[in-house]
Amino acid sequence: MLHLQSPTAARWLRQVDAHLEEVLIDHAHCEKKAAGTALNLIFHYVEDAELCREMTAIVNEELEHFHMVLDLLQRRGIRFRRLKPSQYGRKLNDLVRKQEPQRAVDRLLVAGLIEARSCERFQQLAEHVEDPELAAFYRGLFESEARHHATYTRLATHFAPEDSVMNRLDELAAAEAAIIAEGEDLPRMHS
Amino acid sequence: MLHLQSPTAARWLRQVDAHLEEVLIDHAHCEKKAAGTALNLIFHYVEDAELCREMTAIVNEELEHFHMVLDLLQRRGIRFRRLKPSQYGRKLNDLVRKQEPQRAVDRLLVAGLIEARSCERFQQLAEHVEDPELAAFYRGLFESEARHHATYTRLATHFAPEDSVMNRLDELAAAEAAIIAEGEDLPRMHS
Repeated sequence: MLHLQSPTAARWLRQVDAHLEEVLIDHAHCEKKAAGTALNLIFHYVEDAELCREMTAIVNEELEHFHMVLDLLQRRGIRFRRLKPSQYGRKLNDLVRKQEPQRAVDRLLVAGLIEARSCERFQQLAEHVEDPELAAFYRGLFESEARHHATYTRLATHFAPEDSVMNRLDELAAAEAAIIAEGEDLPRMHS
Repeated sequence: MLHLQSPTAARWLRQVDAHLEEVLIDHAHCEKKAAGTALNLIFHYVEDAELCREMTAIVNEELEHFHMVLDLLQRRGIRFRRLKPSQYGRKLNDLVRKQEPQRAVDRLLVAGLIEARSCERFQQLAEHVEDPELAAFYRGLFESEARHHATYTRLATHFAPEDSVMNRLDELAAAEAAIIAEGEDLPRMHS
Protein backbone atom coordinates (compact mmCIF):
# COMPACT_ATOMS: atom_id res chain seq x y z
CA MET A 1 0.00 0.00 0.00
CA LEU A 2 2.84 2.39 0.79
CA HIS A 3 5.08 1.20 -2.08
CA LEU A 4 8.17 1.28 0.14
CA GLN A 5 10.88 -1.19 -0.79
CA SER A 6 12.49 -1.57 2.62
CA PRO A 7 11.51 -1.30 6.27
CA THR A 8 13.20 1.18 8.60
CA ALA A 9 16.33 -0.28 10.21
CA ALA A 10 16.51 -0.83 13.99
CA ARG A 11 19.47 1.57 13.92
CA TRP A 12 17.04 4.45 13.50
CA LEU A 13 14.96 3.59 16.57
CA ARG A 14 18.16 3.60 18.67
CA GLN A 15 18.97 7.03 17.25
CA VAL A 16 15.48 8.26 18.22
CA ASP A 17 15.85 6.85 21.75
CA ALA A 18 19.11 8.74 22.20
CA HIS A 19 17.86 12.03 20.72
CA LEU A 20 14.08 12.11 21.13
CA GLU A 21 13.84 15.89 21.67
CA GLU A 22 15.72 16.66 18.49
CA VAL A 23 13.59 14.20 16.49
CA LEU A 24 10.42 15.81 17.87
CA ILE A 25 11.62 19.26 16.84
CA ASP A 26 12.54 17.92 13.39
CA HIS A 27 9.08 16.36 13.17
CA ALA A 28 7.49 19.81 13.55
CA HIS A 29 9.69 21.14 10.74
CA CYS A 30 8.72 18.17 8.55
CA GLU A 31 5.01 18.93 8.95
CA LYS A 32 5.66 22.54 7.97
CA LYS A 33 7.70 21.45 4.95
CA ALA A 34 4.93 19.07 3.90
CA ALA A 35 2.48 22.01 3.91
CA GLY A 36 4.95 23.99 1.79
CA THR A 37 5.29 21.16 -0.73
CA ALA A 38 1.52 20.90 -1.15
CA LEU A 39 1.10 24.66 -1.57
CA ASN A 40 3.93 24.78 -4.12
CA LEU A 41 2.11 22.13 -6.13
CA ILE A 42 -0.98 24.38 -6.21
CA PHE A 43 1.17 27.22 -7.52
CA HIS A 44 2.70 25.09 -10.27
CA TYR A 45 -0.36 23.14 -11.39
CA VAL A 46 -3.08 25.65 -10.57
CA GLU A 47 -5.23 24.75 -13.55
CA ASP A 48 -5.75 21.19 -12.22
CA ALA A 49 -8.88 21.63 -10.10
CA GLU A 50 -8.70 18.26 -8.33
CA LEU A 51 -5.03 18.77 -7.50
CA CYS A 52 -5.84 22.19 -6.01
CA ARG A 53 -8.62 20.73 -3.90
CA GLU A 54 -6.55 17.82 -2.61
CA MET A 55 -3.46 19.95 -1.97
CA THR A 56 -5.56 22.44 -0.02
CA ALA A 57 -6.78 19.63 2.24
CA ILE A 58 -3.19 18.48 2.72
CA VAL A 59 -1.92 22.02 3.51
CA ASN A 60 -4.61 22.32 6.18
CA GLU A 61 -3.86 18.92 7.70
CA GLU A 62 -0.08 19.35 7.71
CA LEU A 63 -0.36 22.75 9.38
CA GLU A 64 -2.69 21.22 11.95
CA HIS A 65 -0.07 18.54 12.63
CA PHE A 66 2.64 21.21 12.79
CA HIS A 67 0.74 22.87 15.62
CA MET A 68 0.04 19.54 17.31
CA VAL A 69 3.78 18.91 17.46
CA LEU A 70 4.46 22.47 18.66
CA ASP A 71 1.89 21.99 21.44
CA LEU A 72 3.48 18.69 22.40
CA LEU A 73 6.90 20.34 22.56
CA GLN A 74 5.49 23.11 24.73
CA ARG A 75 3.86 20.64 27.14
CA ARG A 76 7.24 18.95 27.50
CA GLY A 77 9.16 22.19 28.00
CA ILE A 78 11.15 21.65 24.80
CA ARG A 79 12.06 24.90 23.07
CA PHE A 80 11.17 24.80 19.38
CA ARG A 81 14.09 26.00 17.30
CA ARG A 82 15.62 25.88 13.85
CA LEU A 83 17.47 22.67 13.00
CA LYS A 84 19.77 21.70 10.18
CA PRO A 85 17.51 19.49 8.05
CA SER A 86 18.37 15.96 7.04
CA GLN A 87 19.59 15.39 3.48
CA TYR A 88 16.78 12.94 2.74
CA GLY A 89 14.34 15.40 1.12
CA ARG A 90 17.04 17.10 -0.92
CA LYS A 91 18.39 13.79 -2.20
CA LEU A 92 14.91 12.70 -3.25
CA ASN A 93 14.11 16.03 -4.88
CA ASP A 94 17.36 15.78 -6.86
CA LEU A 95 15.78 12.80 -8.64
CA VAL A 96 12.90 14.88 -10.03
CA ARG A 97 13.12 15.12 -13.84
CA LYS A 98 13.32 18.66 -15.20
CA GLN A 99 10.86 18.52 -18.12
CA GLU A 100 7.09 18.64 -17.79
CA PRO A 101 4.99 16.53 -17.54
CA GLN A 102 7.64 14.16 -16.07
CA ARG A 103 8.49 16.84 -13.53
CA ALA A 104 4.91 16.87 -12.20
CA VAL A 105 4.84 13.06 -11.99
CA ASP A 106 8.10 12.98 -10.05
CA ARG A 107 7.23 15.82 -7.70
CA LEU A 108 3.99 14.10 -6.78
CA LEU A 109 5.59 10.65 -6.41
CA VAL A 110 8.47 12.00 -4.31
CA ALA A 111 6.04 13.85 -2.05
CA GLY A 112 4.04 10.62 -1.80
CA LEU A 113 7.12 8.55 -0.91
CA ILE A 114 8.07 10.97 1.85
CA GLU A 115 4.54 10.58 3.24
CA ALA A 116 4.87 6.80 2.95
CA ARG A 117 8.17 6.74 4.83
CA SER A 118 6.78 9.04 7.52
CA CYS A 119 3.79 6.74 7.83
CA GLU A 120 5.99 3.66 8.19
CA ARG A 121 8.15 5.40 10.79
CA PHE A 122 5.16 6.67 12.79
CA GLN A 123 3.92 3.09 12.92
CA GLN A 124 7.31 1.89 14.15
CA LEU A 125 7.46 4.69 16.71
CA ALA A 126 3.93 3.99 17.95
CA GLU A 127 4.98 0.41 18.72
CA HIS A 128 8.42 1.30 20.04
CA VAL A 129 8.10 4.29 22.38
CA GLU A 130 7.07 3.58 25.95
CA ASP A 131 5.57 7.01 26.55
CA PRO A 132 1.79 6.46 26.10
CA GLU A 133 1.08 10.07 25.03
CA LEU A 134 3.71 9.86 22.30
CA ALA A 135 2.60 6.41 21.18
CA ALA A 136 -0.99 7.66 20.81
CA PHE A 137 0.24 10.76 19.01
CA TYR A 138 2.16 8.75 16.42
CA ARG A 139 -0.75 6.35 15.96
CA GLY A 140 -3.00 9.34 15.29
CA LEU A 141 -0.78 10.55 12.45
CA PHE A 142 -0.38 7.21 10.73
CA GLU A 143 -3.67 7.20 8.84
CA SER A 144 -3.38 10.64 7.31
CA GLU A 145 0.15 9.99 5.99
CA ALA A 146 -1.05 6.79 4.30
CA ARG A 147 -3.96 8.68 2.77
CA HIS A 148 -1.68 11.46 1.54
CA HIS A 149 0.57 8.89 -0.09
CA ALA A 150 -2.42 7.46 -1.98
CA THR A 151 -3.56 10.95 -3.00
CA TYR A 152 -0.16 11.95 -4.38
CA THR A 153 0.19 8.71 -6.33
CA ARG A 154 -3.29 9.07 -7.81
CA LEU A 155 -2.71 12.71 -8.80
CA ALA A 156 0.47 11.67 -10.65
CA THR A 157 -1.79 9.86 -13.14
CA HIS A 158 -3.16 13.27 -14.19
CA PHE A 159 0.19 13.83 -15.87
CA ALA A 160 1.10 10.40 -17.34
CA PRO A 161 -0.57 7.02 -18.04
CA GLU A 162 -1.01 4.83 -14.98
CA ASP A 163 1.47 2.13 -16.02
CA SER A 164 4.22 4.66 -16.61
CA VAL A 165 3.45 6.28 -13.24
CA MET A 166 3.68 2.93 -11.49
CA ASN A 167 6.97 2.08 -13.22
CA ARG A 168 8.40 5.42 -12.16
CA LEU A 169 7.10 4.88 -8.63
CA ASP A 170 9.04 1.58 -8.54
CA GLU A 171 12.21 3.37 -9.63
CA LEU A 172 11.82 6.19 -7.14
CA ALA A 173 10.90 3.80 -4.33
CA ALA A 174 14.10 1.85 -5.00
CA ALA A 175 16.08 5.08 -4.84
CA GLU A 176 14.26 6.07 -1.65
CA ALA A 177 15.11 2.74 -0.01
CA ALA A 178 18.79 3.25 -0.90
CA ILE A 179 18.80 6.82 0.46
CA ILE A 180 17.13 5.89 3.74
CA ALA A 181 19.45 2.88 4.12
CA GLU A 182 22.49 5.19 4.06
CA GLY A 183 21.32 6.83 7.28
CA GLU A 184 22.61 10.14 8.62
CA ASP A 185 24.46 11.12 11.74
CA LEU A 186 22.05 13.92 12.59
CA PRO A 187 19.06 12.43 14.44
CA ARG A 188 16.05 13.30 12.28
CA MET A 189 12.65 11.93 11.23
CA HIS A 190 14.25 10.71 8.00
CA SER A 191 17.82 9.96 9.17
CA MET B 1 -8.50 51.33 10.47
CA LEU B 2 -7.01 50.16 7.17
CA HIS B 3 -4.22 52.78 7.11
CA LEU B 4 -4.74 53.43 3.40
CA GLN B 5 -3.85 56.92 2.24
CA SER B 6 -6.13 57.10 -0.79
CA PRO B 7 -9.43 55.63 -1.95
CA THR B 8 -9.64 53.57 -5.14
CA ALA B 9 -10.27 55.73 -8.22
CA ALA B 10 -13.51 55.41 -10.20
CA ARG B 11 -11.29 54.47 -13.17
CA TRP B 12 -10.78 51.04 -11.62
CA LEU B 13 -14.50 50.28 -11.30
CA ARG B 14 -14.91 51.06 -15.01
CA GLN B 15 -12.05 48.65 -15.74
CA VAL B 16 -13.79 45.96 -13.69
CA ASP B 17 -17.10 46.53 -15.49
CA ALA B 18 -15.38 46.06 -18.84
CA HIS B 19 -13.36 42.97 -17.81
CA LEU B 20 -15.21 41.30 -14.95
CA GLU B 21 -14.23 37.73 -15.89
CA GLU B 22 -10.54 38.53 -15.94
CA VAL B 23 -10.77 40.33 -12.60
CA LEU B 24 -12.54 37.32 -11.09
CA ILE B 25 -9.81 34.99 -12.34
CA ASP B 26 -7.16 37.33 -10.98
CA HIS B 27 -9.00 37.39 -7.67
CA ALA B 28 -8.59 33.60 -7.37
CA HIS B 29 -4.86 33.96 -8.01
CA CYS B 30 -4.65 36.71 -5.38
CA GLU B 31 -6.19 34.47 -2.73
CA LYS B 32 -3.67 31.75 -3.58
CA LYS B 33 -0.79 34.24 -3.42
CA ALA B 34 -2.02 35.48 -0.04
CA ALA B 35 -1.86 31.90 1.26
CA GLY B 36 1.68 31.63 -0.11
CA THR B 37 2.74 34.85 1.59
CA ALA B 38 1.46 33.68 4.97
CA LEU B 39 3.12 30.27 4.65
CA ASN B 40 6.43 31.89 3.64
CA LEU B 41 6.27 33.98 6.80
CA ILE B 42 5.96 30.77 8.85
CA PHE B 43 9.06 29.41 7.11
CA HIS B 44 11.09 32.54 7.77
CA TYR B 45 9.98 33.31 11.33
CA VAL B 46 9.19 29.81 12.55
CA GLU B 47 10.41 30.45 16.08
CA ASP B 48 7.67 33.09 16.64
CA ALA B 49 4.83 30.96 18.00
CA GLU B 50 2.12 33.60 17.72
CA LEU B 51 3.12 34.43 14.16
CA CYS B 52 2.95 30.73 13.24
CA ARG B 53 -0.51 30.42 14.78
CA GLU B 54 -1.89 33.53 13.08
CA MET B 55 -0.30 32.72 9.71
CA THR B 56 -1.77 29.22 9.83
CA ALA B 57 -5.23 30.69 10.29
CA ILE B 58 -4.61 33.04 7.37
CA VAL B 59 -3.31 30.24 5.08
CA ASN B 60 -6.46 28.25 5.79
CA GLU B 61 -8.77 31.21 5.20
CA GLU B 62 -7.08 32.34 2.00
CA LEU B 63 -7.20 28.83 0.56
CA GLU B 64 -10.87 28.65 1.49
CA HIS B 65 -11.42 31.92 -0.37
CA PHE B 66 -9.40 30.62 -3.31
CA HIS B 67 -11.82 27.71 -3.63
CA MET B 68 -14.83 29.98 -3.15
CA VAL B 69 -13.67 32.02 -6.15
CA LEU B 70 -12.95 28.85 -8.17
CA ASP B 71 -16.48 27.59 -7.39
CA LEU B 72 -17.94 30.93 -8.41
CA LEU B 73 -16.01 30.80 -11.71
CA GLN B 74 -17.26 27.29 -12.33
CA ARG B 75 -20.88 28.25 -11.66
CA ARG B 76 -20.49 31.02 -14.22
CA GLY B 77 -18.82 28.79 -16.81
CA ILE B 78 -15.59 30.83 -16.66
CA ARG B 79 -12.51 28.71 -17.25
CA PHE B 80 -9.88 29.30 -14.58
CA ARG B 81 -6.49 29.89 -16.16
CA ARG B 82 -3.08 31.41 -15.57
CA LEU B 83 -2.91 35.19 -15.91
CA LYS B 84 -0.06 37.63 -16.11
CA PRO B 85 -0.13 39.17 -12.62
CA SER B 86 -0.36 42.89 -12.00
CA GLN B 87 2.84 44.69 -11.00
CA TYR B 88 1.31 45.92 -7.74
CA GLY B 89 2.63 43.16 -5.47
CA ARG B 90 6.10 43.20 -7.02
CA LYS B 91 6.36 46.97 -6.68
CA LEU B 92 5.37 46.79 -3.02
CA ASN B 93 7.71 43.91 -2.30
CA ASP B 94 10.57 45.88 -3.86
CA LEU B 95 10.18 48.31 -0.94
CA VAL B 96 10.99 45.65 1.66
CA ARG B 97 14.28 46.40 3.41
CA LYS B 98 16.91 43.66 3.12
CA GLN B 99 18.23 43.48 6.70
CA GLU B 100 16.48 41.79 9.59
CA PRO B 101 14.57 42.76 11.69
CA GLN B 102 13.50 45.57 9.29
CA ARG B 103 12.85 42.95 6.64
CA ALA B 104 10.31 41.18 8.88
CA VAL B 105 8.56 44.47 9.72
CA ASP B 106 8.28 45.41 6.05
CA ARG B 107 7.13 41.99 4.86
CA LEU B 108 4.36 42.01 7.44
CA LEU B 109 3.33 45.60 6.75
CA VAL B 110 3.32 45.09 2.97
CA ALA B 111 1.22 41.94 3.36
CA GLY B 112 -1.10 43.96 5.61
CA LEU B 113 -1.40 46.80 3.11
CA ILE B 114 -2.31 44.40 0.32
CA GLU B 115 -5.04 43.01 2.58
CA ALA B 116 -6.18 46.55 3.33
CA ARG B 117 -6.39 47.50 -0.34
CA SER B 118 -8.25 44.28 -1.13
CA CYS B 119 -10.64 45.05 1.69
CA GLU B 120 -11.26 48.56 0.42
CA ARG B 121 -11.82 47.28 -3.12
CA PHE B 122 -14.18 44.50 -2.01
CA GLN B 123 -16.23 47.15 -0.23
CA GLN B 124 -16.33 49.29 -3.37
CA LEU B 125 -17.25 46.27 -5.49
CA ALA B 126 -19.98 45.19 -3.09
CA GLU B 127 -21.61 48.61 -3.50
CA HIS B 128 -20.93 48.88 -7.21
CA VAL B 129 -21.80 45.56 -8.86
CA GLU B 130 -25.44 44.95 -9.72
CA ASP B 131 -25.18 41.15 -9.61
CA PRO B 132 -26.56 40.23 -6.14
CA GLU B 133 -24.52 37.00 -5.82
CA LEU B 134 -21.30 38.88 -6.51
CA ALA B 135 -22.22 41.75 -4.20
CA ALA B 136 -22.87 39.29 -1.36
CA PHE B 137 -19.65 37.47 -2.17
CA TYR B 138 -17.55 40.61 -1.91
CA ARG B 139 -19.32 41.70 1.27
CA GLY B 140 -18.49 38.29 2.78
CA LEU B 141 -14.77 38.77 2.17
CA PHE B 142 -14.54 42.29 3.51
CA GLU B 143 -14.36 41.42 7.20
CA SER B 144 -11.58 38.85 6.95
CA GLU B 145 -9.34 41.12 4.89
CA ALA B 146 -9.71 43.88 7.49
CA ARG B 147 -8.89 41.39 10.25
CA HIS B 148 -5.83 40.14 8.38
CA HIS B 149 -4.61 43.70 7.98
CA ALA B 150 -4.85 44.22 11.75
CA THR B 151 -3.08 40.90 12.41
CA TYR B 152 -0.16 41.69 10.11
CA THR B 153 0.26 45.16 11.59
CA ARG B 154 0.21 43.79 15.15
CA LEU B 155 2.72 41.04 14.34
CA ALA B 156 5.12 43.64 12.94
CA THR B 157 5.51 44.93 16.50
CA HIS B 158 7.19 41.61 17.38
CA PHE B 159 10.17 42.84 15.37
CA ALA B 160 10.36 46.57 16.20
CA PRO B 161 8.91 49.07 18.72
CA GLU B 162 5.34 50.12 17.97
CA ASP B 163 6.13 53.76 17.12
CA SER B 164 8.75 52.75 14.59
CA VAL B 165 6.31 50.23 13.09
CA MET B 166 3.63 52.89 12.78
CA ASN B 167 6.06 55.35 11.17
CA ARG B 168 7.10 52.73 8.67
CA LEU B 169 3.47 51.86 8.01
CA ASP B 170 2.86 55.53 7.14
CA GLU B 171 5.77 55.48 4.70
CA LEU B 172 4.70 52.24 3.07
CA ALA B 173 1.06 53.33 2.91
CA ALA B 174 2.13 56.50 1.09
CA ALA B 175 4.10 54.38 -1.38
CA GLU B 176 1.13 52.04 -1.79
CA ALA B 177 -1.18 54.95 -2.56
CA ALA B 178 1.24 56.17 -5.23
CA ILE B 179 1.56 52.71 -6.79
CA ILE B 180 -2.18 52.08 -6.92
CA ALA B 181 -2.75 55.59 -8.32
CA GLU B 182 -0.53 54.78 -11.32
CA GLY B 183 -2.98 52.09 -12.41
CA GLU B 184 -2.23 49.36 -14.96
CA ASP B 185 -3.66 48.52 -18.34
CA LEU B 186 -4.22 44.87 -17.44
CA PRO B 187 -7.55 44.56 -15.60
CA ARG B 188 -6.65 43.10 -12.21
CA MET B 189 -7.74 43.20 -8.55
CA HIS B 190 -4.94 45.67 -7.91
CA SER B 191 -4.74 47.49 -11.27
